[in-house]
Amino acid sequence: MAHKHIQIFDTTLRDGEQVPGCQLNTDEKIEIALALEKLGVDIMEVGFPISSPGDFDSVSKIASIITESTVCALSRAVEKDIDAAAEAVKNARMPRIHTGIGTSDSHVYSKLRTTRENVLERGVAAVKYAKRFVEDVEFYAEDAGRTDNEYLAKVLEVVIAAGATVVNIPDTTGYCLPWQYGAKIKYIKEHVRGIDKVHISTHCHNDLGLATANSIAGVEHGATQVECTINGIGERAGNASLEEVVMILRQHQDLNFDTRIQSRQLKSMSELVSTRMRMPVQSNKAIVGSNAFSHSSGIHQDGVIKSRETYEIIDPLDVGVHESSIVLTARSGRAALKFRAAKLGFDVEREQMEPYYEAFLKLADEKKVVQDQDLLSLFSS
Amino acid sequence: MAHKHIQIFDTTLRDGEQVPGCQLNTDEKIEIALALEKLGVDIMEVGFPISSPGDFDSVSKIASIITESTVCALSRAVEKDIDAAAEAVKNARMPRIHTGIGTSDSHVYSKLRTTRENVLERGVAAVKYAKRFVEDVEFYAEDAGRTDNEYLAKVLEVVIAAGATVVNIPDTTGYCLPWQYGAKIKYIKEHVRGIDKVHISTHCHNDLGLATANSIAGVEHGATQVECTINGIGERAGNASLEEVVMILRQHQDLNFDTRIQSRQLKSMSELVSTRMRMPVQSNKAIVGSNAFSHSSGIHQDGVIKSRETYEIIDPLDVGVHESSIVLTARSGRAALKFRAAKLGFDVEREQMEPYYEAFLKLADEKKVVQDQDLLSLFSS
Repeated sequence: MAHKHIQIFDTTLRDGEQVPGCQLNTDEKIEIALALEKLGVDIMEVGFPISSPGDFDSVSKIASIITESTVCALSRAVEKDIDAAAEAVKNARMPRIHTGIGTSDSHVYSKLRTTRENVLERGVAAVKYAKRFVEDVEFYAEDAGRTDNEYLAKVLEVVIAAGATVVNIPDTTGYCLPWQYGAKIKYIKEHVRGIDKVHISTHCHNDLGLATANSIAGVEHGATQVECTINGIGERAGNASLEEVVMILRQHQDLNFDTRIQSRQLKSMSELVSTRMRMPVQSNKAIVGSNAFSHSSGIHQDGVIKSRETYEIIDPLDVGVHESSIVLTARSGRAALKFRAAKLGFDVEREQMEPYYEAFLKLADEKKVVQDQDLLSLFSS
Repeated sequence: MAHKHIQIFDTTLRDGEQVPGCQLNTDEKIEIALALEKLGVDIMEVGFPISSPGDFDSVSKIASIITESTVCALSRAVEKDIDAAAEAVKNARMPRIHTGIGTSDSHVYSKLRTTRENVLERGVAAVKYAKRFVEDVEFYAEDAGRTDNEYLAKVLEVVIAAGATVVNIPDTTGYCLPWQYGAKIKYIKEHVRGIDKVHISTHCHNDLGLATANSIAGVEHGATQVECTINGIGERAGNASLEEVVMILRQHQDLNFDTRIQSRQLKSMSELVSTRMRMPVQSNKAIVGSNAFSHSSGIHQDGVIKSRETYEIIDPLDVGVHESSIVLTARSGRAALKFRAAKLGFDVEREQMEPYYEAFLKLADEKKVVQDQDLLSLFSS
C-alpha cells in the first residue's frame, strides 16, 4: 500500500520568530526560508504582515524568492490584515493566506466579547475576502482544542463552503491529551460536510510537553497537514517539533504515512535555526540534541558495540549526524573501554583488562569524561 | 471519587547523572537528593553502585540521610551487582533494589546471546537474591517496549511470584507510540497473574519526543508508578520530564489521578539540577523553560490582558514562576503597549495611541525587544 502523503507546514518564521529574543533581520529570514525549501517543507508560514513594516517586508521578499514551497502569511479575520497578507504574498509562485478567529468560549466571550453567531459570520467573511486574492485559503479556529465539537464542526462547515482549502485545528493552549486531540480530529472528519475536499491541519502547542504526540494522534485520525517548527520553538513552550514529527512518521512505517522532508538535512537545519535565533537546543532534545545519539552507561555501550539496534532506533546518518558517540565516563564498562582502546591501537586481552579498568575508573571519577588523550597515556604506561 | 495516587520515581541521580558532562560530586548529589525529598518524590533512584567506587559512596551517603522517600539503587541481574546495591542502600529507612534484564529479542539474542528461557531464569534468580537483603525489589524488563507481550507477561508472572513488588516496563529505545505503550500496559494488567498485588511502572525514553505522552498513556491503562527526571534529562534524548508528567495529572483532574509533588517547587528544582549538572534548559521547555509563560504575539498578549485563561492553562505560581511575562517586540499589539504604558504611569487614550504605536514598532524592528527604559523615553517625548 502506498504511503499517504502528510504535508509539513513549517511556521518557524512566524510562530517561532515571534518569540522574545528570536527576532531575525530580513537576510536571516531569507537564509532560513531557502534552507526550509531545500529541506522539503510543503508550506512555510513566514510572517504576520500587518504586525510591522519589517515583517511585511520580509514576507514579501521571501514570497518572491521561494518556488518549491507554498508561502503563507498570517492574518486575523479583519480586512486590513488580509489586505496586508495578500499584498505580501502576491509574488509567490504558490501563495496562501491563513486567516481565522477564536472559537472557544474563552475566546468568544472573554477575548472577543461577542457571540458564537458573530464569530461564525466573521470567519466566513474573512475567508470570502481572502479568496478575492488567492485560491489557497487556510482557516484557523483558534483554541479549537477547547472548543465544543458541535460548534466547531458548524464553523468549519461554513468556512469550507466559503472556500477554505485547509482547516486548522489549533490546540492553542497545549491542553489536550493525545487521545482527546485525536478524538476531536475524528469527530471533525466524520461530522463536517465537505471535509473530504480539504486538508485538516494540526497546530499543537507544547505547554504540557504533548505537542508532538498530539500532532501524531491528529494524523492517525485524519489530519493531512502538520504545523510545526524547527527545534519546536514558538510561543511559550513552543510548537510540535518538525524533526520529531517527521522521524516518527518515518520510523513507524506501519502507519503508512510519509512526508517529503529530506531527513539528512535535519541536524544542519536545527543548527542554522538555533544559531540565527540565538536559541540553544538542549543536549537531550530528541533527534537534534547533542546527546541524542550518545551512549554513556556501561550497559548501553556494551549493547551498542554488539549491535546498534539494541539501543538506537534511528540510524544517526538518517538525520545528518555523523556517528553515534560512546562517551567514556565512570558509568562506562569494560566493553566500551576495550572497544575504544582497540580503536587507538591497543589490543588488550580480556584477562589483562582489569588493572587498566581500575585505573580508568579512578581517572573517570576525577575527570568525569575520559578523552582519547587520557587513554593513550593510560594504556602506554 | 478520591484521586488515585500515582507514585513518582525520580531517576535524575541515576539515569540523568550518567549523561556525558552531567556528573556530580557527592556533595552535589546529596544537595539534589534533599531537594527531591522536599519536592515529594515517592522513590529516588540515586545510582548504580557496582559501576564505580564514587557512585557506591554517594548512594550510601544519600541512603543514610533521606527519610521521606524510598532510596533505590540499580543493578543488573548478577549477584555482585546486587551485593553492591544492597550494601549501598542498607542504611536507608526505605531501601529498594532495582534489578532486571533485557527481554526483547534484540537483547536476548544479540546482546546477551542466550535464550528466552535463560533470561527468565536469571530474572527470577536476581529477584530472589535481592529479596535476601530488602523487602522492596523492583524488576525491570529492559526494552519491554519492543518485547513481545506474551513472553513479557510470562517473565513478569514469574518475577512477581519470586517476590518483586514493582514491575518496570521500560520503553528503553523510546520507540513506542502512546497508544501502543498504553495497550502494552493494558495487556500486562489483564494477563499477568498476581499483577494486582504489585505496582506497574513506566520508564519511557524520549528518542522520538514521546516520553511524557507514553508515561501518561501508561498511567491511563493501569501503571501506578512513573519513572522520570527533572528537566527530562537522561541517556540520549532523556526520560519523561517529572514536571510535565506531574502537571498533566494535576491539570487533567477528570482523569482522577494525583501525585504528592509540591508543584510550587518545580521551577527552583529545575534550576538547581540545571545549574549543578551544567545542562541548560531550553527556553521553550514545557513548564520550566524561561519562555514557558511568556507571551509575545500581539494576539496572545491582548488575550492574556483581558483574561489569563485565554492563553494560559497553568497559573505560573503553581509551578513557582513569579508571573507570566508580556514581552514587547515588533509582534506586540496596541493592547500590550497600552497595558505596559499604564503600568509605567502613562495613561494614553485609545485615540492618541497611534503615533506612539508607530514609533514603538520602528524601535522594535530595530531593537527586537523593547524594555521599560525605552518606553519611558518614548512616552515622555
